Amino acid sequence: MKVEILKIKKLAKTIFEKAGLSPDDADIITEVLTETEARGVFTHGFIRLPRYVDCLLSGGIKKDGTYETLVDTPSWSVLDGNNNLGIVISYKATSLAIRKAAETGIGVVNVRHSHHFGAAGYYTSMCADKSMAGFAMSNGDVLLAATGAKNRSIGNNPFSFAFPANKYGKIVYDIAMSHTSDQKVIKMAKDNLPLPEGWIIDKNGKPTTDASEYEKGGTLLPFGGYKGYGMAMMVETLAGILSGSATTKNVHAWNTDPNVGGNVGHFFMALDLSKTGDVNAFRDKTDALIEEMKNSPKAEGVSEIYFPGEIEAAKSALCRQRGWMDIADSTVEAVISSGEKLGLKAGL
Amino acid sequence: MKVEILKIKKLAKTIFEKAGLSPDDADIITEVLTETEARGVFTHGFIRLPRYVDCLLSGGIKKDGTYETLVDTPSWSVLDGNNNLGIVISYKATSLAIRKAAETGIGVVNVRHSHHFGAAGYYTSMCADKSMAGFAMSNGDVLLAATGAKNRSIGNNPFSFAFPANKYGKIVYDIAMSHTSDQKVIKMAKDNLPLPEGWIIDKNGKPTTDASEYEKGGTLLPFGGYKGYGMAMMVETLAGILSGSATTKNVHAWNTDPNVGGNVGHFFMALDLSKTGDVNAFRDKTDALIEEMKNSPKAEGVSEIYFPGEIEAAKSALCRQRGWMDIADSTVEAVISSGEKLGLKAGL
Repeated sequence: MKVEILKIKKLAKTIFEKAGLSPDDADIITEVLTETEARGVFTHGFIRLPRYVDCLLSGGIKKDGTYETLVDTPSWSVLDGNNNLGIVISYKATSLAIRKAAETGIGVVNVRHSHHFGAAGYYTSMCADKSMAGFAMSNGDVLLAATGAKNRSIGNNPFSFAFPANKYGKIVYDIAMSHTSDQKVIKMAKDNLPLPEGWIIDKNGKPTTDASEYEKGGTLLPFGGYKGYGMAMMVETLAGILSGSATTKNVHAWNTDPNVGGNVGHFFMALDLSKTGDVNAFRDKTDALIEEMKNSPKAEGVSEIYFPGEIEAAKSALCRQRGWMDIADSTVEAVISSGEKLGLKAGL
Repeated sequence: MKVEILKIKKLAKTIFEKAGLSPDDADIITEVLTETEARGVFTHGFIRLPRYVDCLLSGGIKKDGTYETLVDTPSWSVLDGNNNLGIVISYKATSLAIRKAAETGIGVVNVRHSHHFGAAGYYTSMCADKSMAGFAMSNGDVLLAATGAKNRSIGNNPFSFAFPANKYGKIVYDIAMSHTSDQKVIKMAKDNLPLPEGWIIDKNGKPTTDASEYEKGGTLLPFGGYKGYGMAMMVETLAGILSGSATTKNVHAWNTDPNVGGNVGHFFMALDLSKTGDVNAFRDKTDALIEEMKNSPKAEGVSEIYFPGEIEAAKSALCRQRGWMDIADSTVEAVISSGEKLGLKAGL
C-alpha cells in the first residue's frame, strides 16, 4: 500500500522509543530501515521491525546503544557492541571508521557482541557520501552449505562496498553469498517455478531444481560455487574471528534470551580517497567506468546494463521525490501490530 | 614430464638474467613461477615465461625492477611501477605493504604502470606467512561481459585473500571473475563437452552451452551473474582507478611495444593481526573454522570438503618434498626455446 514516508518514519521512531531506545538511536534505526525500504530491499526494511522490537522487549538485545572500545589504534579499532542492536552499533562503528580514515587515510573498525545489522549497503553508502570508499561485512546465522556439504554450515555473510561517483552518484554493491535469498526460493516454490541449476540442494545434499525441496530441509548454495563459499569464509574470518565474535553455528543474530549475549561480528573499512589523489578525479573516473559498462553493446533482449546499486538508488530517489513508498500490506500491518503491543493506537 | 625443481629454477633464473633482470629480480620471478607451478596453477606458471621474456626483450617491459614512490603516508602508498614486470613490482609492493602493516597495523599499496602480475595468491601468501591477513587485486585486459553486455567489457580481474592458520597452514583464496578460465572452455570444446549454463555467451550475446562458440567470438560470463560482475567492478576501481592506472579497454597487460607504457594497476593490503589481538588465537580460530567446514556432513558423492587453497598447498608440499614437478611437455619445450633464443643451449 502507499505509505507516506513521514508517517511511517514517525510511527517507527515512536515504536523504537517506546521499546526503550534513546531518540537519537531511534532516529538511526528508523532512517536505516526507511532508506532500505525505499531502495526496494524489502527483505531488510520494515518487515524486520517487529523482530527487532521483540528482541528489545525480551531483553535479548540491549537498549542503551553504547559500545565499549576494546582496542584503539590510529587506523584500527575493535569495539564491543554491548549486545545492542546491530544497526545502531554499525552506524556508530561506520562513523568511527570514517573519522579514523579522515585522519590516517584508512579506518578499520571491528565489532563484537552485536546482532543482525540490516542492509550492509547502508554503511558503505555512508562512506561514499563522505567521498570515501567503504566496505562492510557481517557474519550471521548458518544458512549456506560449504561446497560439498550436505546442509547448512556457514552464514549467508553479507558483503558490501561503495565508491563515490559524480554524475552517477555512487556504486553500492551489497550481496549475500547464496545465489538467491531463501525468500525468493520459497516464492518460486509457491509459483511452481523451477530453479536454475546450482541454487539449492535437497535434504540429502543432492542438487535439485525443485524449489519445493528447500522447505523440506534443503539448503542454499553459494553463488558461483566454491568462489561464493570462499567469499563466505572471508567474511566469517574478517567479521567473526578478527572481531573476537562467535562464528558459524554459535552465532545468534536475533537474540530474545536476556541471559544470552549477542555475538554477531562486523568489519567496516573506510578509505579516504583524498589522501592519495584528487577525489573529484576519482569520481569522474568512476563515472567513466560506469558509462563504459552502460554503453557496452547489449546482449539480445537486454534493454539496459546496470551498475551495482543503480536500480536501488533510482527507487529511493523516486520515493523521496514523491514522499511516499509502496510497502507490502503485511509489513505495514506487522509494524502497526508492533506499535499496538506497545500501547500505540495510531495507524498510518 | 618430471622436472627437477632445482633444474627448472636454475634455467628460468638464467633466462631472466640473460633477458636483462638483476640476479635478485630474476630470483623473485623465478620463485613466483615455481611456486605457482608447484601449486598446480599451470595457467600462471612457467607457461607464461616465454611471454614475459618476449616483453622484456622487445623493450615493452622494462628490466631495471625499480619503482617510484608517488604517495607515501604511514599506512598507504602509491607506487609507479616504471613499466617493469608485474611480478617483480608486486613482490616489492607486497613487501612494502607488510612493512607498513607491521608499523601501523594496516598497509595498503597501490601500483600503477605495471604489467600482468601472475598468480594473485602468491602475494597474499606472503602476508599470511608473516602472520598477517593479505589482499591482492589487479585489473587486466578485457575478457568478461558485464551483466547484460554482448561482448567483452571488463577484465577478468583477479582477487585474492589469505589468512594464517596453525594446523592447516593458511587459507589462500585466489579467483578470477569468470565462471571458469578461457583455457578450460577451449579444452571442453575440443573434448566435445557441453558447458554448464551461464558460463559463456556466443558472439551475439546469447547464452549457450556449446563450448565451441567461445572461439567463434563468444565471451566469458562473470561467476554468479551480477555478483561476479560487481566484484570485477570493485577490482577495476581499487586496482585501476585508485592507483591512477588505465582501466578496461585501455589496459595493456602484456606490452611488447617499447613506445607504449605498461598501465596495469594493482592493490595490495596487509593487516597485522597482532595489532588488535593474539595472532596465535586467530590462527587457532581459523583452524577451528576450517575444521568445522571439513567436518560438515557431506553431500552425496562428496569424499572431501576443502578450504580455499588446500588442494594447491598439498600439491606444492608434495613437489617440494619430492624435489620434482610434473610440467606439461609443451611448457618445458617453450621454456627451453626461450632460453635458446638467448643463446642458452643447456636443456633440462
